[in-house]
Amino acid sequence: MRQAPEILRQPVVASKWREGVARPKRLLSFIEEEARPLIELASMPIVSVRQLNRDHVLQLCRFAGHYEVCSVMFSLPLKGKILINAFYEPSTRTRLSFESAWHRLGGDVMSITDPATTGIAKGESLQDVAEMFNHYGDVVVLRDTNEKAIYDMLPSLRVPIVNAGNGIDEHPTQALTDLYAMFKWRPELTLKDVADKDKIRIGIIGVPSRMRTVRSLLLMLSIFANAVHEVVIISDQQDPFDPDQREELEDAGLTIRCTRSLNAELPELDVVYINSIAWVGDTFEKLGEDLRLNAQSPLKKNAIIMHPLARGAELDTALDNTDHNWYFAQARGAVFIRMALLTSVVQRVPQVIDTPTELL
Amino acid sequence: MRQAPEILRQPVVASKWREGVARPKRLLSFIEEEARPLIELASMPIVSVRQLNRDHVLQLCRFAGHYEVCSVMFSLPLKGKILINAFYEPSTRTRLSFESAWHRLGGDVMSITDPATTGIAKGESLQDVAEMFNHYGDVVVLRDTNEKAIYDMLPSLRVPIVNAGNGIDEHPTQALTDLYAMFKWRPELTLKDVADKDKIRIGIIGVPSRMRTVRSLLLMLSIFANAVHEVVIISDQQDPFDPDQREELEDAGLTIRCTRSLNAELPELDVVYINSIAWVGDTFEKLGEDLRLNAQSPLKKNAIIMHPLARGAELDTALDNTDHNWYFAQARGAVFIRMALLTSVVQRVPQVIDTPTELL
Amino acid sequence: MRQAPEILRQPVVASKWREGVARPKRLLSFIEEEARPLIELASMPIVSVRQLNRDHVLQLCRFAGHYEVCSVMFSLPLKGKILINAFYEPSTRTRLSFESAWHRLGGDVMSITDPATTGIAKGESLQDVAEMFNHYGDVVVLRDTNEKAIYDMLPSLRVPIVNAGNGIDEHPTQALTDLYAMFKWRPELTLKDVADKDKIRIGIIGVPSRMRTVRSLLLMLSIFANAVHEVVIISDQQDPFDPDQREELEDAGLTIRCTRSLNAELPELDVVYINSIAWVGDTFEKLGEDLRLNAQSPLKKNAIIMHPLARGAELDTALDNTDHNWYFAQARGAVFIRMALLTSVVQRVPQVIDTPTELL
Repeated sequence: MRQAPEILRQPVVASKWREGVARPKRLLSFIEEEARPLIELASMPIVSVRQLNRDHVLQLCRFAGHYEVCSVMFSLPLKGKILINAFYEPSTRTRLSFESAWHRLGGDVMSITDPATTGIAKGESLQDVAEMFNHYGDVVVLRDTNEKAIYDMLPSLRVPIVNAGNGIDEHPTQALTDLYAMFKWRPELTLKDVADKDKIRIGIIGVPSRMRTVRSLLLMLSIFANAVHEVVIISDQQDPFDPDQREELEDAGLTIRCTRSLNAELPELDVVYINSIAWVGDTFEKLGEDLRLNAQSPLKKNAIIMHPLARGAELDTALDNTDHNWYFAQARGAVFIRMALLTSVVQRVPQVIDTPTELL
Repeated sequence: MRQAPEILRQPVVASKWREGVARPKRLLSFIEEEARPLIELASMPIVSVRQLNRDHVLQLCRFAGHYEVCSVMFSLPLKGKILINAFYEPSTRTRLSFESAWHRLGGDVMSITDPATTGIAKGESLQDVAEMFNHYGDVVVLRDTNEKAIYDMLPSLRVPIVNAGNGIDEHPTQALTDLYAMFKWRPELTLKDVADKDKIRIGIIGVPSRMRTVRSLLLMLSIFANAVHEVVIISDQQDPFDPDQREELEDAGLTIRCTRSLNAELPELDVVYINSIAWVGDTFEKLGEDLRLNAQSPLKKNAIIMHPLARGAELDTALDNTDHNWYFAQARGAVFIRMALLTSVVQRVPQVIDTPTELL
Repeated sequence: MRQAPEILRQPVVASKWREGVARPKRLLSFIEEEARPLIELASMPIVSVRQLNRDHVLQLCRFAGHYEVCSVMFSLPLKGKILINAFYEPSTRTRLSFESAWHRLGGDVMSITDPATTGIAKGESLQDVAEMFNHYGDVVVLRDTNEKAIYDMLPSLRVPIVNAGNGIDEHPTQALTDLYAMFKWRPELTLKDVADKDKIRIGIIGVPSRMRTVRSLLLMLSIFANAVHEVVIISDQQDPFDPDQREELEDAGLTIRCTRSLNAELPELDVVYINSIAWVGDTFEKLGEDLRLNAQSPLKKNAIIMHPLARGAELDTALDNTDHNWYFAQARGAVFIRMALLTSVVQRVPQVIDTPTELL
C-alpha cells in the first residue's frame, strides 16, 4: 500500500497560527470586574447598539476575556436551557457561532434554518411565531432579511431575543465582537483617558447606510469616541450615509471623513476594517469591488486589519500570515463575546462571576 | 447617540400574558397519581388515539401537570437518550415542541427536516429507514404526508415511534394537548360522574374527514363522552364525516350535530375549537374560510376558544387579550404533555414518579 | 371506538431481530487491549485508509466492541465537546451515525446539511471555512462531492477532521465499519496466523474505481491480506480498476480476480459485499443493475452478505430474515466504530480505557 501523503501523516497542530497574541490576559488587567452592568442586561432584548452604554460594553468584553482564558469551566451555567436559533436569512458563520457559544455553556439548541418549513411561509404572523417561541425556548436568536421582523416579534415575547442581523439595519453582536478584538489588541483603548499616542485612526472600507455591520460598528465606536482620532469612511458611493446618520455619530463625538481613495489613507490608519458584502433581501450586492487589500497595500507598521468575514476578493489571503491579520483573532473572539452576552440576558451571571448580594 | 426606542429599554416580562390561569394545580388535585397506565405505555408505538383508554389519558395529563408545576427538575430522566425527529412533511411548531420536550428532559435530538436529503428520496424503503433508526436513536417521532408510512415502518422498528401527524389520518399528541388544556380549564371534566352543569357543549369548526387534528380530538372526546353534552360540527361541507366515522363516535356515546351556521351556535358553546387548515399531500387547503371568530362573535360568557395553531384569518388576534383565549394555554401545554408521553414510552416513568415495586 | 389494529397493541420488541449473533464478546477475547495505537490517532486527520496500520484497525475494532457490550457508560468522555457535521453532499445515514456516536459519548453536535446556506455558496474559500471551524468545534466530519475539498481544508485546520466520503475517492469509516462487522462474524481473521479453513474468499459486487466504499474496503483488506484467500471483483465494467489500483493491492498481498458472472462465484464465496450506487457529483449512477442477490441466489452455507446501505433492488429483502443477512449487524456496528474513532482523535482514550502512564 502506498504511503498516505505527508499532510495526513502528522497531527493537526494547535500552534499553526499564533493565536497566543490574541489572548485577552492584558485586557483583563485593564478593566475592573463589575457585575452590575451585566445584571442590567438580564431579560433584555438585544437589538441595537443604542441599548448599550460604555460599562455594558467594557464588562461584556471583560466577561468574554474571562471565558477565553478559562480552559475548563467548573460548571455549565446554561445547563438545561434551550436556545432557539431562528435564521430566516441563510447563514452558517453567525449561526454556528451562537450555537457553539450556547453549547460551550452547557445548553441545548433548536435551529430553524429553512424558511420554507416554517409557519411564516404559510402566512403565520410573526407575533404568533414569537408566542410559540415563549413556550419552547429560553432565548431566541433571530436573523431576518426584514429589519422590522424583530420589532414585530417583541411585543409578544416573554423570553429575550438577540438580533443576529436584521436587514441592513444592525448587527450588534458583530460590533461587540469587533470591539472585543480591538480591545485585546490595544487594551489602552478602554481607559477613561486615552493617551494621544494610543488613540486610533480607523479606516472603514464599506458603506454605513447599506451594511449592518458597519452601522453597528460606528455606533459602538461613538461610545468610545474618546479613543478615536478619526474615522475614515472609504467607499465609492456618492454619499455612504443615511440622512442624519453621520450627524448623530458626530454629535456623539466622532470625527468622520469620507474618501474614495484607499491607498492614500492606508499609511496613516491604525485599524483597517474592510467588508464588501451588503445584504439586500435574500441576496447581496458587492460594493466597492476595487477597494482591496493585498500584500502590496501600503499598510502602516503595526496596523491591524479587521473583517467580519466571510471574505471575497477584497482581502487577499496573502495577508493571512502577516502581523496585520487580526481578522482571525476577531473571528475567534466571536464565540466568547456571545457566551458573555447570552449568559447575561438569561440571568446566569451570578453563576459565573462574583455578584454583590444586593444584585441577586 | 439617539436613545433606543422605548420597547428596547425594558426587559421582557414573564407576566405580559396571564399564563397563571392555565397553571395545572387544580387539575392535579382532581386526578390521583397512578403509575400503572404510564408503565403500560412503555415501548408502545403511539400512532392512534384508539390505543389509549381513559386511565392513560388522565395519567398522562396528570404527569404533564406534574412537569408543568415543577420549575426545577432534580434529575434529567432522558439523559443520554436520543430522539430522532423525522419530519418528512414540513413543520416547525410540532417539531420544536417535541425537541423542546426532549431537551427539557435532558436528552439529545437528531432531526431530519429535509426530505430531499434522505435515502427515501433515492428510493430507500421505509422498512430500511426504520431499521436504520433502530441503531441510531431511542425513539422516533414521525410526521409524514402519507398516512401509511408509519404503519410501513412499524414491523421493522425495535424502538418506539410517535405519530406527529400522518396525512389526514391522526395526530394523537395534538389531541392529548387539547384534552390537557380542557382539563386545566375545567378539572371537573375528569370525574367519573360529571355534574350536568359542568358538562360541555363543544363546537368544532372543521372537517372531521379531512383534518387529522379534528379526527383525533373526536376520538379522544369519545373516551370522555360522559363529560360532553353535545359535539357540534360546524362546516360548509355537505358531509364532513368519513363513512362510519360518525357512527363510531355515536356508538361510543357522543351526541353529534352538524351545522353550517357558526354564529347561531356560539351563544350556547362552552368550548369552541377552530382550525381551517387541512393538509393534502405536500400542500394544504383552507376549508370554511367564512367561518371566522373575531371580537364581535357572540361567544358565551366564560367560553374558551381552542386552536391547534398555526392560525390564519379564521381566528382574529383581537381575541388574544380576552378571557376566551385558551389557545395560548393550549400551546404552552404541548411541551408538557409530550414530556409526559415521551418519558412513558422510553420507560423512564419510575425515575420521575413513584412506581409500585411490582411494576418495576 | 374501534380497537386499534393488532400491530399497535403490542410493544416494540428488542428481540425482533437476532442482533445477539452480532454481539462482539468473542471478538474481544481475540484482541488484546492496547492503548498505544489509539493514542497515536490523537489529533490526526482521518482521511484515507492509507493512514492506518494493522494495530490501528484491530484496536479500533476492539474499542468499538468495548462500547458495544457496555450498556451503561460510567462517564461521558466527550461531555462539553462539539462536533461539526459538514455534509455538503446530502446524506442521512452517515450523518446520523456520526451524530448518534457523538451524542452517545455525551457531546453536542452542530450540523450543516444545506450547502445553499453556507458561505461556500457565496464564494467563501474552503480555507476560510476551515479557519471558522477551528473556533467553533472540536472535530469536523466532512462529506463532499469534491474529493479535493478535504485536502484543501487541511492546511488551515487546527482541529481534527474525519472524511465521511470525498467524491469517488475514499470513505474510511465505512471500511472500518465493514472490518468490524467481519471480525465480529469470524474473530479468527484478526489473528497473525489465520488457519487456512478460516481464511475468506470475498466477492465484491461493485466497481473499485468508481465507488469510494469499495476503494476503501480494498485498501483495508490489503492490511489483512493474510486472512484473505482471494478477492473476486464482480462487475459489468470492462476494467473496474483505476490505473495502478489493482497493482498496489496485489503488491500488498491480495489475490484478485475479476469476473462478470455473479452466480458462478456465489457457491464459493464466504463473504459477499454488494453495492450498486456510485456517486458522481451531486447525483449517482447505478452500476451493475443486473447483478442482484435474492433468495434464489446460490449462496454458500454460512456465507454472509454485507452492504453499506442504502440499498436498492440489487439486494432483495427476502434475504433479510436469513442467516446470510450480516448487513444489519454491519449497520449496527457503524455507531460503535465511529464512537471508537472519534474518542481517539479528540484524545479522550485515557478517560475510557486503561492507558499506560508514559502515553498520557
